[in-house]
Amino acid sequence: MMKELPLSKVYQLLEPGPVVLLTTARKGRTNVMTMSWHMMVEFEPPLVACVVSNRGYSFAALRATKECVIAVPARKLASKVVNVGNCSGRDVEKFDRFALTPVPAARVAPPLVAECFANLECKVADTRLVNTYNLFVLEVLKAWIDPAQKNPKTLHHHGYGRFAVDGKMITLKSRMR
Amino acid sequence: MMKELPLSKVYQLLEPGPVVLLTTARKGRTNVMTMSWHMMVEFEPPLVACVVSNRGYSFAALRATKECVIAVPARKLASKVVNVGNCSGRDVEKFDRFALTPVPAARVAPPLVAECFANLECKVADTRLVNTYNLFVLEVLKAWIDPAQKNPKTLHHHGYGRFAVDGKMITLKSRMR
Repeated sequence: MMKELPLSKVYQLLEPGPVVLLTTARKGRTNVMTMSWHMMVEFEPPLVACVVSNRGYSFAALRATKECVIAVPARKLASKVVNVGNCSGRDVEKFDRFALTPVPAARVAPPLVAECFANLECKVADTRLVNTYNLFVLEVLKAWIDPAQKNPKTLHHHGYGRFAVDGKMITLKSRMR
Repeated sequence: MMKELPLSKVYQLLEPGPVVLLTTARKGRTNVMTMSWHMMVEFEPPLVACVVSNRGYSFAALRATKECVIAVPARKLASKVVNVGNCSGRDVEKFDRFALTPVPAARVAPPLVAECFANLECKVADTRLVNTYNLFVLEVLKAWIDPAQKNPKTLHHHGYGRFAVDGKMITLKSRMR
C-alpha cells in the first residue's frame, strides 16, 4: 500500500508548509495531534524542527520516547485534521473517535496514519531548545508515500480553522534545490 | 503605504509556510535571499525559527548584526523570488538587479521590501542552534501589511522551482487559534 520514499525527497513534502498530523505512542497508548509549526533543517539525512506545546498530551510522550511519526494529510481529511486539533489525547482515543487507521511503522513505535498520503518515521535528534521553546529537532529515519493518492492538495493554516488549499502548480527555471 | 499589523496576527502569515524573502544590512550593503525553511515558535511576542545556510552571503550579516526583515511575496513576484534565490549577494546587488524597492524599517537596519504584502522586522533572539544547524530563533519586533494587496496568494516551494500557489480558502469550525 505505502511505498518507500527516498529520504532525499522528504524536504519536498514539508518545505511547502502543509498542516500535518504527529503521532506518538507511550505505555500502550497511541495519540495523534495536529501541527503547523514545523520546518526543514537539513536535506539528508532529513532533519525537521517542530514545536509541540507542553500543554498537549503528545509533549510528554515525545519527550520520553523520543519517537514520532509525521503524517501529511490531503484536503479530503480537512475536517478530521481540525477535529484532531480540537481535543486532547488525555480525554479521547483519537484514532478511534475520528476513524483514523494506525499502521505499524518499521523503525519506531508510533503508528503511521493510513489515510495520509505521506508518513515520516522520526526520532528526536536534539532537545536543546525543548525547555525554552518546546522545539524538537527530529531526524527522519524512513519515509512512506501512498502512490494511490495522485497530486494530493495540502492544507495551509491561516488561523482559527481557515485554510488555504493548494491551487495550481507553477514551475520556474531555477537552480535552487 | 504600509499599515502596522498587530504582533498577535503575525503567526497567521508564516504558519501557512509561504516562501519568503529575508533582508540583511551590513557595512552599508543590503542583501536579500529567498527562504522556505522557517516556522512559528511562539504567538506573542512572535518568535520565528529559520535556517540560513552558512554558504550564503546573508549568514554572516545575520550572525554579526542580529537583525533581519522577513518579507512575504505574493504570486506576482514568483519570478523575482526565484531569481533572488539563484544568485549570491557576494556577486550581485540584488535589490538593483531585480528591481526590488528597499524601504527603511522602523526598528532595524535591514530594509523592508516595498513589493511584498507583509514585512516583519526581526532581531535574533537565540543562537544556540546556529553552529550545529544554521538555525536562528528570531523575535518579530514590528510587522507591516500592505492594505492595497487584497487576498494575496502565496507560494509554497516543492523543490527545483516548482511551487504550489494558494488556491481556494476553506473555513472549518475550530477552537484552534
